[in-house]
Amino acid sequence: MTETILRADAMLTPHGAIAGAELAFDETGRITYAGAARPDSVVTHDLAGHVLMPGLVNGHTHSAMTLLRGVSDDEGFMPWLAAVQALEQHLTHDDVATGLQLAMVEMIETGTVAFADMYHWDESLIELVRAAGMRAMVALASFAPEAVGFPGVSPWNGSDATAQTEALAERYSGDPQIRVAYGPHAPYTCPPEFLRDIAVRAARRGIPIHTHISESAAEVEQIVERYGATPGEHLASLGLFEADVLAAHCVHLTSGEIERFAREGVAVSHNPVSNLKLGCGIAPLPDWQAAGLRVSLGTDSVASNNTLDLFEEIKTATILHRGARQDAAIVRASDVLDIATRSGAEAIGFPESGALEAGGLADVIALDVRGSSATPLDLASDPGVLTSHLGFAATGADVRHVFIGGRHVYSEGEHLTLDAAAIRARAAEARARLSAASRHPD
Amino acid sequence: MTETILRADAMLTPHGAIAGAELAFDETGRITYAGAARPDSVVTHDLAGHVLMPGLVNGHTHSAMTLLRGVSDDEGFMPWLAAVQALEQHLTHDDVATGLQLAMVEMIETGTVAFADMYHWDESLIELVRAAGMRAMVALASFAPEAVGFPGVSPWNGSDATAQTEALAERYSGDPQIRVAYGPHAPYTCPPEFLRDIAVRAARRGIPIHTHISESAAEVEQIVERYGATPGEHLASLGLFEADVLAAHCVHLTSGEIERFAREGVAVSHNPVSNLKLGCGIAPLPDWQAAGLRVSLGTDSVASNNTLDLFEEIKTATILHRGARQDAAIVRASDVLDIATRSGAEAIGFPESGALEAGGLADVIALDVRGSSATPLDLASDPGVLTSHLGFAATGADVRHVFIGGRHVYSEGEHLTLDAAAIRARAAEARARLSAASRHPD
Repeated sequence: MTETILRADAMLTPHGAIAGAELAFDETGRITYAGAARPDSVVTHDLAGHVLMPGLVNGHTHSAMTLLRGVSDDEGFMPWLAAVQALEQHLTHDDVATGLQLAMVEMIETGTVAFADMYHWDESLIELVRAAGMRAMVALASFAPEAVGFPGVSPWNGSDATAQTEALAERYSGDPQIRVAYGPHAPYTCPPEFLRDIAVRAARRGIPIHTHISESAAEVEQIVERYGATPGEHLASLGLFEADVLAAHCVHLTSGEIERFAREGVAVSHNPVSNLKLGCGIAPLPDWQAAGLRVSLGTDSVASNNTLDLFEEIKTATILHRGARQDAAIVRASDVLDIATRSGAEAIGFPESGALEAGGLADVIALDVRGSSATPLDLASDPGVLTSHLGFAATGADVRHVFIGGRHVYSEGEHLTLDAAAIRARAAEARARLSAASRHPD
Repeated sequence: MTETILRADAMLTPHGAIAGAELAFDETGRITYAGAARPDSVVTHDLAGHVLMPGLVNGHTHSAMTLLRGVSDDEGFMPWLAAVQALEQHLTHDDVATGLQLAMVEMIETGTVAFADMYHWDESLIELVRAAGMRAMVALASFAPEAVGFPGVSPWNGSDATAQTEALAERYSGDPQIRVAYGPHAPYTCPPEFLRDIAVRAARRGIPIHTHISESAAEVEQIVERYGATPGEHLASLGLFEADVLAAHCVHLTSGEIERFAREGVAVSHNPVSNLKLGCGIAPLPDWQAAGLRVSLGTDSVASNNTLDLFEEIKTATILHRGARQDAAIVRASDVLDIATRSGAEAIGFPESGALEAGGLADVIALDVRGSSATPLDLASDPGVLTSHLGFAATGADVRHVFIGGRHVYSEGEHLTLDAAAIRARAAEARARLSAASRHPD
């Protein structure tokens, strides 16, 4: 069987950084060797001046919202939301496809190989993910049995979304690139009966749930007032956590909720940039880590970020809690790199991604370390400095190669699975049309 | 007189963004025109697909510390400080020159045109800044009359540094690229008599002072215990604020200190990434803005950042306070862009930089807006979205051209005033030597 062999200056493994590194994988996309350079290897890609690390995992996004990048984001939360919704109601199915593809272009070229998404999804959109070569956990956002989620895109209400989720889960069962999840939006937008129904279905069918929990203090207040319980306790009482749940944000969890999430195996997605930008607050990541929660790292949509570059999210997550708690040892870059790779991959249903070791999936990225912000790096005598570089200095712009399951999807600035220029042009056209439509409502 | 005329998709002016923009400057480096594209212009640089903005100003750094990038930054504050100092004591004058040049390479290619620096400075180092074409306010770090600041670099003690500051200030008086400042390190490292002496000299000679104030809570506690006053009040009582003061960090200022700083015209430098990373806390930027303080934006050294990319600092400064105060309207990207340009330029003594308008200095950078993270931008019909792009999505990697005082110092990835490859190689050699020396102390 033919092997691909990457040789690089250094590599991040689950057991620390290695200098003079080599990674081999076979035609099935499995890693066959990860370790020090072997003298007799026939190297396929000589990546001198580069380092290897697991591909990044975006634990929470709404990818089609790339089309709404930069909408009204300097005027506070309510005007922002109004502007976003004014554009979103004019979205077509083609727009969702274009937005998704633009997101995949940006994710791939900044080193992301897998993502958990909540938006509109159907078979044609999933096929775009498969064609791009990425992995995704896709959740169909829904709000109530009778509420139509994306009026311009499809007439589906929440009941349709539930049925569609189950059909897609069946259709893509066992697909190595696709996981399908229910997407009840949040406890403040979904009535209890709807959530209870999804909880029962999810547990019975083994389909995971992707939802938003406790993003803002106002939301918590509203739920407590309405149901006499915090959002986490409310969802627990509806049986939601008997399924596999990926809970985005969780900014305002109580210590009781954190304990409960740990006990019930709820995975949480940390989205620090979005949480800061929208004024939601600072999630208690150090408390999650202490409780042993499974954590992923997410960008949220570009309408609230405004990029999909997870390296930026990694640095923010590492330094934010140090500053907020005035303790420079409370979160380490190495912890956050793990959250952005291995832990995130587990959280979104791809447990074989996220680690460069034999037997795992060859989801691997190569970053150039010849630039200014990587100088001076003394990887040969101190490979441990790789963690520092990846956590504090690297950016998506340093990514030069991306392999997903061994498939080369990005090479030296060129996309090998997506027509980036055509996608960018379609996105610009779509945005101009959406802007005009929202300025001149029918 | 020959004019250089830049034509771009859009431009950030003090009065907002303009689409279809044109900037002209003459041989003296002064802007002669900034506005909408003129039909009859002979365009020198057709920058289609790019936007123009004022060059960024780094309000606080220690540039030579690029050589210490990534030292021990995942192990908490005290181990980090010990590791930094273990390397720093082996620095030579050549190392300081190399570190400074590496910093200038990184600053220029990420769009910074001017910086306020505190480290070791002499005429040969200042000449490196002039040769690179940058602007700098240089301060000689000093700790006490008898304390030698950089034992491996020079035998200068604090008294020598004071004399040297005055000689350099005289030598570079009126130089458009150089401002010289006293650099008493901080109230907790400088005895009161030393600070009082500098205060008197500074006020008499019109030389500014660059210092650190209230970076950590521990520092404030120590000063209150030692002198019965907060750091700001202590420095005020020593007469420091009778001179022009640039105060870095100011994380733990009291409301009384903020009022006093506003009254006495103290300029402050906001360094959110460093403050977060070292666990120092979150500076009260919104309170500074409300009080009308003159604010600049700084990276601090790469030993505590780990890059000199001010775009990262701009985004962090914009979103951090929104999150910390749970108010998405409390800091706007447009405010922070002003802090990183016009306000910062004033704070570090170059009031004619920082704004693209006729009469100002042609300190201008061009960013490529054809990439994914700039898609879709609808600049033609909504030029205001430029602020959003520059504040939330752009990074230093997007910078393609840098002009300082009209001099083209960076063009399409090529440095025109610095030999970047040679500097990076020298930096790598220096770091390897420093690492070896710190592992095997004499």
